Amino acid sequence: MELLSVLWMIVVIFALAKIAGFFFKKIGMPGLIGEIIVGILLANLIIGDKTIAGMFGIWKDIGTGMSSENFDILNTLAQIGVMFLLFAVGLETRVKELLSVGKTAFMVALLGVVIPFILGFVYVEFIFDPGNIPSSLFLGAAMVATSVGITARVIKDLNLTNTKESKIIIGAAVIDDVLGMIVLAIVKGIVDNSGGGIGNIILITVIAFVFVILWLFIAAKVVPVIYKKCKAYSESKKAKGKKYTNVEVFAIAIIVCFGSAVLAEFIGLAAIIGSFLAGVLFSEHAEEFKLGEKVEALNSFLVPFFFVVVGIQVNLSLIRGEIVAAIIVVIVLAILGKYIGCMLGAKIGDKTMKKNSLNIIGVGMIPRGEVGIIVATIGLDLIGKEFTNLYSIVVLMSVVTTIIAPPILARLFRKEYPEENVKG
Amino acid sequence: MELLSVLWMIVVIFALAKIAGFFFKKIGMPGLIGEIIVGILLANLIIGDKTIAGMFGIWKDIGTGMSSENFDILNTLAQIGVMFLLFAVGLETRVKELLSVGKTAFMVALLGVVIPFILGFVYVEFIFDPGNIPSSLFLGAAMVATSVGITARVIKDLNLTNTKESKIIIGAAVIDDVLGMIVLAIVKGIVDNSGGGIGNIILITVIAFVFVILWLFIAAKVVPVIYKKCKAYSESKKAKGKKYTNVEVFAIAIIVCFGSAVLAEFIGLAAIIGSFLAGVLFSEHAEEFKLGEKVEALNSFLVPFFFVVVGIQVNLSLIRGEIVAAIIVVIVLAILGKYIGCMLGAKIGDKTMKKNSLNIIGVGMIPRGEVGIIVATIGLDLIGKEFTNLYSIVVLMSVVTTIIAPPILARLFRKEYPEENVKG
Repeated sequence: MELLSVLWMIVVIFALAKIAGFFFKKIGMPGLIGEIIVGILLANLIIGDKTIAGMFGIWKDIGTGMSSENFDILNTLAQIGVMFLLFAVGLETRVKELLSVGKTAFMVALLGVVIPFILGFVYVEFIFDPGNIPSSLFLGAAMVATSVGITARVIKDLNLTNTKESKIIIGAAVIDDVLGMIVLAIVKGIVDNSGGGIGNIILITVIAFVFVILWLFIAAKVVPVIYKKCKAYSESKKAKGKKYTNVEVFAIAIIVCFGSAVLAEFIGLAAIIGSFLAGVLFSEHAEEFKLGEKVEALNSFLVPFFFVVVGIQVNLSLIRGEIVAAIIVVIVLAILGKYIGCMLGAKIGDKTMKKNSLNIIGVGMIPRGEVGIIVATIGLDLIGKEFTNLYSIVVLMSVVTTIIAPPILARLFRKEYPEENVKG
Repeated sequence: MELLSVLWMIVVIFALAKIAGFFFKKIGMPGLIGEIIVGILLANLIIGDKTIAGMFGIWKDIGTGMSSENFDILNTLAQIGVMFLLFAVGLETRVKELLSVGKTAFMVALLGVVIPFILGFVYVEFIFDPGNIPSSLFLGAAMVATSVGITARVIKDLNLTNTKESKIIIGAAVIDDVLGMIVLAIVKGIVDNSGGGIGNIILITVIAFVFVILWLFIAAKVVPVIYKKCKAYSESKKAKGKKYTNVEVFAIAIIVCFGSAVLAEFIGLAAIIGSFLAGVLFSEHAEEFKLGEKVEALNSFLVPFFFVVVGIQVNLSLIRGEIVAAIIVVIVLAILGKYIGCMLGAKIGDKTMKKNSLNIIGVGMIPRGEVGIIVATIGLDLIGKEFTNLYSIVVLMSVVTTIIAPPILARLFRKEYPEENVKG
């Protein structure tokens, strides 16, 4: 390992990602789009006879699974980054709120998961790549995601966090995340042990549900008890004037995050499911121990590497002929599936809702952001070469849905709340 | 790269390091000692026919320079960690204060650098490994360091930051760091181009001085101007009610930190010199942008990997016979060199100083902490197999000096300030 070359690669990629992210934010779009585009350019812009990524010694052959050491180092930072990213999302997910947002948000999330999954699965299974069940399942799973992060930031930027529609969207996005994780767990389990038949599907579904529900139960019932005991212990020590060595809660959070990720991966779920649920465990006390801010600092260094690596794995030279049609179809299905599913869910959940409110909820759930991409990355690792085209399609779909939803959402909100200060 | 195995390695090593660190803090010692010991145990405890590190697929052959991929991944995290660690030290080093602590602190630092360097150099050059100039230079450079971090924490823990002795110690430790960096730069330059003769030594000395002084000049004169301009620009934008996209100062700091490290490495200095000086650039505004807290969060995740890697490279099986004598000699020289040099410096700088105050300053400068180890790590990479013994000796010397100084310092302070609340 040549220290100079590794440091040089890290600083160039980090700087490009942050600069691109800055300019995307400047024109009102999520920074991660800029970071992904940096990755796509690095891997697809050819200078002389090499891509820019190639000049840095970064390459991965998706066919053979071989990769260069520089790619592995970058990918390690990326994987740690995405773990902390999902941990941060979990930190903002409180079990109580999850249970309290009620029927409407749940129905929005449920239909917003089921309809896009079916559309994605059916399209690949019967039209794009008939009979390829692993690819069909993973495209379906990648269509399911709604990025809590993106959605929340759009609403926050619009300065409208307290409207009824916003609350339903955020609540539904959180439930959507949990459902999405369960779908991912099931899909990954089926593909990992493909050929196990219906019994296997049932088994992995049960494992996924048990894992998620167990973690949520621990978050709701066990963590508060542990917290109280620790608090009482440290208070009594302090009251007696005894020496008390502060436990670094952040370090414990990191250990639980990685431990839970390893456990999830070990029992056949995805590592990020574990880190997301670890975040939920700490969500009630995140503020007290400044966990959010601290993870944010880690993420602001590590996460750009994830999105650049996402972009680096997109092969634009594959996009020609029928693939262009497939890209358009998948994007349309992703938009319509989410829009219709969520509107329908909102209508079923709350019969009194007006058309414009339904529109807001439908559009607000469209951005896929990072979650769809994360699912696709797992699919790429697991399925390999056969999934290359669909992987690139999912990345483009995520980018497009994330770009188009915010301006439409702003317009709809402005129509509904003309008196408020709606920016963007 | 197998994600599960990498995650598993990361969580186990991180957890062991944090747990050991916690217990060392609990008995009043710096946590990094615990982290180093974890590394030593991982690499030297044999279960069955393998070391524990070997069972995780972590190995490095210092002779051939070959290492396993898991070692490389761990080492990447370690190297990024040590860069941010030195950046954090730089953030606490203000050029103004550096210039204002005056003659006494400067004399303490200067003699505290010169005497240990000479002792270390002479011992290796004439007794331990006669004629081996690279090893002699690197042992000398490793003897020079005083850890600002450790020293400051000891005084902070004693609750005596405002005494005259404390101010001199902290000031001297900071100047010591700068001088130590210059010594490292010179030593590294000489060893890198060994055989260049006296002309080469002069050249590298000039480059090192120019680099350090240029950066300090930029910190003192250029950064304030840039800061004012940026501030004025953003205020005027805000005053006109225009949209203003916040620049992420933390991201800029990271880019400057890595960029400066790459530049330093590129011109033949050590990367950490670059990141340390980058920290100095931001020190005046670190608080405003919460840079310290943010880097702290990164460090609390990354730095334990550095100290574990430090320990992993210690080969206890080499320690027998004459090496035991050498360990004892180096430890004694390290303690006496620093103690006498700093006492002498304080006496020359301030003739009115009492004996107990001189004692406090001499003892307060003894802990080597991480800096000596970092220097030794660079020596190990550069010199290779021949430096293995001295590397292990430096690590043990750093651990011992860091362990013994705090209790003696507390006793001396208690004698001088019996009325204050001196803990520890």
